[in-house]
Amino acid sequence: EDQTTTTYDIELIPGDGIGPEVLDVALPLFQDVADDYGFEFDFTRRDWGTEYYLEHGEMMPEDGLAELADADSIFLGAVGHPEVPDHVTLHGLLLPIRKGFDQYVCKRPNVLFEGIESPLKGYGAGDIDFVVYRENTEGEYADIGGREHRGLGHETAVQSALFTRQGTERIVRAAFQAAAEREGHLTSVTKSNAQAHSMVFWDDIVEEVSEEYPGVTVERLLVDAASMDLIRRPHEFDVLVASNLFGDVLTDIGAQITGSMGLAPSGNIHPGEEYPSMFEPVHGSAPDIVGEGVANPLASVLSWSMLLEDVGEEAAADALWSAVIGQISDQSAPRTPDLGGDAGTEAVVEDLRSRL
Amino acid sequence: EDQTTTTYDIELIPGDGIGPEVLDVALPLFQDVADDYGFEFDFTRRDWGTEYYLEHGEMMPEDGLAELADADSIFLGAVGHPEVPDHVTLHGLLLPIRKGFDQYVCKRPNVLFEGIESPLKGYGAGDIDFVVYRENTEGEYADIGGREHRGLGHETAVQSALFTRQGTERIVRAAFQAAAEREGHLTSVTKSNAQAHSMVFWDDIVEEVSEEYPGVTVERLLVDAASMDLIRRPHEFDVLVASNLFGDVLTDIGAQITGSMGLAPSGNIHPGEEYPSMFEPVHGSAPDIVGEGVANPLASVLSWSMLLEDVGEEAAADALWSAVIGQISDQSAPRTPDLGGDAGTEAVVEDLRSRL
Ligand SMILES: CC(C)[C@H](C(=O)O)[C@@H](O)C(=O)O
Ligand SMILES: CC(C)[C@H](C(=O)O)[C@@H](O)C(=O)O
Repeated sequence: EDQTTTTYDIELIPGDGIGPEVLDVALPLFQDVADDYGFEFDFTRRDWGTEYYLEHGEMMPEDGLAELADADSIFLGAVGHPEVPDHVTLHGLLLPIRKGFDQYVCKRPNVLFEGIESPLKGYGAGDIDFVVYRENTEGEYADIGGREHRGLGHETAVQSALFTRQGTERIVRAAFQAAAEREGHLTSVTKSNAQAHSMVFWDDIVEEVSEEYPGVTVERLLVDAASMDLIRRPHEFDVLVASNLFGDVLTDIGAQITGSMGLAPSGNIHPGEEYPSMFEPVHGSAPDIVGEGVANPLASVLSWSMLLEDVGEEAAADALWSAVIGQISDQSAPRTPDLGGDAGTEAVVEDLRSRL
Repeated sequence: EDQTTTTYDIELIPGDGIGPEVLDVALPLFQDVADDYGFEFDFTRRDWGTEYYLEHGEMMPEDGLAELADADSIFLGAVGHPEVPDHVTLHGLLLPIRKGFDQYVCKRPNVLFEGIESPLKGYGAGDIDFVVYRENTEGEYADIGGREHRGLGHETAVQSALFTRQGTERIVRAAFQAAAEREGHLTSVTKSNAQAHSMVFWDDIVEEVSEEYPGVTVERLLVDAASMDLIRRPHEFDVLVASNLFGDVLTDIGAQITGSMGLAPSGNIHPGEEYPSMFEPVHGSAPDIVGEGVANPLASVLSWSMLLEDVGEEAAADALWSAVIGQISDQSAPRTPDLGGDAGTEAVVEDLRSRL
């Protein structure tokens, strides 16, 4: 009787700063999971990022996207470098992948785990558990605009946010679907009172799609009020849906109130078959701690769990997620400095391997 | 020997919801301050707002701005009504005044007062004390954009943010000046990594203006990181400067971490002589508690203090501000429900009057 083993083609883009060091240390853990659950990874590693840029004048090769296109999934470490402006590094690597592979769902779970302290009074393990569905390909991140009359008194810059029906409907529908599979509560975050051209359109689409999901209750919040409410009553949220920019702000607040940026995973998901999705920790390249071996690998590990779930290896995904939960709820387990401990990346990963 | 008494022409726009009820109750307090400090108010009261809209089809008369133009100052209660979309009410009253009177500095102090509990662990009285200088006339609130192909598959909405050199320079300069007069630390908040057309322009202007203020240290933060940092390390901020939208989000977070939206004052300031400035509490019309007589008047009182400072009555401004501080630090003083008490608006105002 023949047995074929499934192999996943995974593109690794360690990127800048702590990206490569965390990935190097964590790879054996991911390999363990594959061994345990009987599948294989075929890794291709790309040395793209700011070092590459300083040498070649571009963050990735001209045909970079094409090289990634056939992968089953992509893992990205971090992008950003103190010596190169962020808009260069991001528009050269991270944003083109999100847009080019039509990864229109940016999914970011925010959970307050046992063993992690929230900066908010009165919130303990399990009290915060929501997921943000962020539009990931257009909105306020559209590369539309310009700057004229440089240096003159009437110099003017324009930045245009673009919302298409297709782009808006699909993220709103994905969020409704997620809410239907969770607690049935969706919060749509806009700024319709001040941005009537774009956000009233968004509201109309939420209204339309809500008819397909009669079981989901819909709450509409303005982004300023939502930012407050994530501090005031985070336990009341289930699924939030927001534009690219608003999702960016809300997920960083979400990471903060659940205890650490070092724990926040994220998926840039193309739900169809056409392109690969990309998973990355929400934290950046953290130039201040590069090379010290103390970067928290947990956001990467949780992102890898999301990657496994996305390719269909749910049991393996659960195993990784559970290992992290087991570790942080164990007071005697190693922790990195951002979580109040003094362990290094390696000790944390080794401990996770022992928990699988 | 003749004595002339200074009289201030103040336009009162109570507006919607709790706006009128708070103002009615608080006016005797403001009158007391005038009596104590030897000046007079000449009030003109405008019944503009959503009731007016439902009757006349517009939030204020055609020549509304002209009627206000000669005032020494304007006080606005609140705008917003459950039965009329916010973009109608706001674009019909609040935003035209901010823009039409070129009130380009939106100044919002955020102070954690003694007697008020922050939702953040480890923060007590005096630990949070920063002020946000928010651009108030352009940016992401520009009324530029549109929506085409309604209802069709290729429907598209565009919302354009507008940044002019004049508009950006003047708010940045005002913030630097404020920082120079405070702790000498300015934080400029942008999203330059994703919005390169507008925000890199903003960064360049911050760089230019910083040369006029060598004594002020400048920190640049992205809006997502800034939102986190207001939760993680709010004690480190002194003056923040941000665009219209980002200032909106940051000041709501600021209100929340300093204990209550019911305490947050704000000034929409036209620093020149040409137009009047406008002061308003940051909270909205709070339709859920209208008519109950329990709205917190303190944000209005603090806003009135800012109004008095702006017209040059500093001693009177201090007296009002101190009365509020005295009241909230006094455990036995009346408090409205949002601050954990069970007193009504009237009891709070009467107590303040007794403290003058
Ligand atoms: C680095 C930056 C462009 C990015 C974003 O704003 O999307 C980051 O903040 C994130 O949230 O993934
Ligand atoms: C009501 C709304 C238009 C307004 C704003 O966004 O400016 C409010 O949130 C504020 O902060 O004053």
